[in-house]
Amino acid sequence: MGISEAQILEIVREMLEEAVPGLEVGIGDDAAIFHFAREGVVLTVDSFYEGVHFNLDYFGYADVGWKSLAAGISDVAAMGGEPSCALVSLAFDEPPEESDVRSLLEGLRDIAREYDMPIVGGDVCRSSCGLGVSVTVAGTVHPSGAVLRSGAQEGDFIGVTGRLGDSAGGLAVLLSGDDSRRTKFAPLVRAHLRPRPMVAAGTVLADYGATAMEDVSDGLAADLVHICEQSGVGCSVEAEQVPLSGELMILAEEERADPLEWALVGGEDYNLVFTAPEDRFLEASAALTGQDVIASHIGTVTAAGEGMMLRRRDGTVTDMRGKGYDHFLR
Amino acid sequence: MGISEAQILEIVREMLEEAVPGLEVGIGDDAAIFHFAREGVVLTVDSFYEGVHFNLDYFGYADVGWKSLAAGISDVAAMGGEPSCALVSLAFDEPPEESDVRSLLEGLRDIAREYDMPIVGGDVCRSSCGLGVSVTVAGTVHPSGAVLRSGAQEGDFIGVTGRLGDSAGGLAVLLSGDDSRRTKFAPLVRAHLRPRPMVAAGTVLADYGATAMEDVSDGLAADLVHICEQSGVGCSVEAEQVPLSGELMILAEEERADPLEWALVGGEDYNLVFTAPEDRFLEASAALTGQDVIASHIGTVTAAGEGMMLRRRDGTVTDMRGKGYDHFLR
Repeated sequence: MGISEAQILEIVREMLEEAVPGLEVGIGDDAAIFHFAREGVVLTVDSFYEGVHFNLDYFGYADVGWKSLAAGISDVAAMGGEPSCALVSLAFDEPPEESDVRSLLEGLRDIAREYDMPIVGGDVCRSSCGLGVSVTVAGTVHPSGAVLRSGAQEGDFIGVTGRLGDSAGGLAVLLSGDDSRRTKFAPLVRAHLRPRPMVAAGTVLADYGATAMEDVSDGLAADLVHICEQSGVGCSVEAEQVPLSGELMILAEEERADPLEWALVGGEDYNLVFTAPEDRFLEASAALTGQDVIASHIGTVTAAGEGMMLRRRDGTVTDMRGKGYDHFLR
Repeated sequence: MGISEAQILEIVREMLEEAVPGLEVGIGDDAAIFHFAREGVVLTVDSFYEGVHFNLDYFGYADVGWKSLAAGISDVAAMGGEPSCALVSLAFDEPPEESDVRSLLEGLRDIAREYDMPIVGGDVCRSSCGLGVSVTVAGTVHPSGAVLRSGAQEGDFIGVTGRLGDSAGGLAVLLSGDDSRRTKFAPLVRAHLRPRPMVAAGTVLADYGATAMEDVSDGLAADLVHICEQSGVGCSVEAEQVPLSGELMILAEEERADPLEWALVGGEDYNLVFTAPEDRFLEASAALTGQDVIASHIGTVTAAGEGMMLRRRDGTVTDMRGKGYDHFLR
């Protein structure tokens, strides 16, 4: 026995309504009203559909809630901004169970609290099939301006935060359906189900003058290609410098897979890829270390004519264009 | 042969990208950055799914684009605010035809231009089934403050703009599948496919001190109940004062239906229902007439204990609670 739209809205209010600075009108009116701490509002929307972005066989409802909000937070982080509030649009194909609604909202609430950004509004409706969550995140720009994709300069160092490919590795573990592997590779599974957007790191990188930045959502290759195309530059990346976790290396051996492929095309890592002049890069890197974030130097920005090249230790050089995830090319 | 995500994004840029005041970063980066003309940002999100909110048998792609944005514009209008910009999240279950993508974007662009509010960002992905559009609208608050649902006072007049029920009548015509009726009842069909949110009227009503306001999206009964519940009041509505169009009356005769039911529970009219003290009501009404908007006086705000009553000419009195559309009670 599922519950009605009115009952869902009541639970939404009970679980998500809170008085926070900046919030003039929250859940329950025609729209929300929010006063941002700074002029210039960062806005992003991401949708998250069952059967496309996740599967309830291996995602709990709370994981869906967490991850659907993570994507938008990460987009704001990738501009060097800070998330302020969010709106969520929830769609269920059948009257949902109350416990599932509560789990979903718990996941949303947990990440919203973790990042200190209330959920201030949204809507609830029926979907044609499966669970759907569409999340809008609004935030503020860094005081010294947003870091765009278009600012990379020839000679800049290219860096990434954290380790790449863990999310794709976690998905492989989940798809294998083997519970003991879920435990063995818990950090990878967590990277897939509960990604942690790099808001603080994005702010540090903006502080230190990163010239371009993007979150690793489509896979390093595709995201770096976006930066190069929009900056009108090329790049040269050393494959062996792409940071991979120990767990991912072990999993890759078990699966006889190439862990670098997970990093290049897996996506959903929600780390940041960025460019900065060498001196700024080194300063930023030191500041990030102080925050327990590792920044790796993986390559250099080159002239546009030199392509977007990945160099492997064995001397192979491949072009990274056309490598990312395209929703309609699979 | 459908097109790829990259091709869709290229068409989105080609058709929607434009330089407008306030827009610092538009389509193509991780997020958009917009500078609002006033402090205090109105935010709303609405999702619109094939098979739930519309059916492509009788909606063109351009109609879907138009109507999906109309809901959010109407939410902002219902606060007395003005829409400033929008984000759209588009989901297709299969690689879509280029012409369909162009039509969808045309509908979105047409209403965005009509209301002078650029589409500044969004995303594109695959859906599990059918077309899905999730729209976020951001806007500014009226200089003298937002008109909420919670401000109705005992003794206030209750008013509505325009005619109610036309959208539900239009849907009945569309569902009948009879092309000659589509022509005969063109204004009703248009009300369903191409609703025109009452932004200018909402501003006038805020100018003249409306005490509470909401857009008629769930049907007059449900929307008025929201106002009463959130204001802690009751209401008394005269059924015969609910404004119905001549076309709707004719259709109702043909269909042997009660046109008042379409007005009360049909919804999606995107007119405004509001409350105001008598003198303010009359001033606002005169100002609206100058804008070619008819405001009808349909009843009075009463004490909470008196219920939310609808009085018919024959003396029947019914309670309006529990009459609206609930996505999971049908």
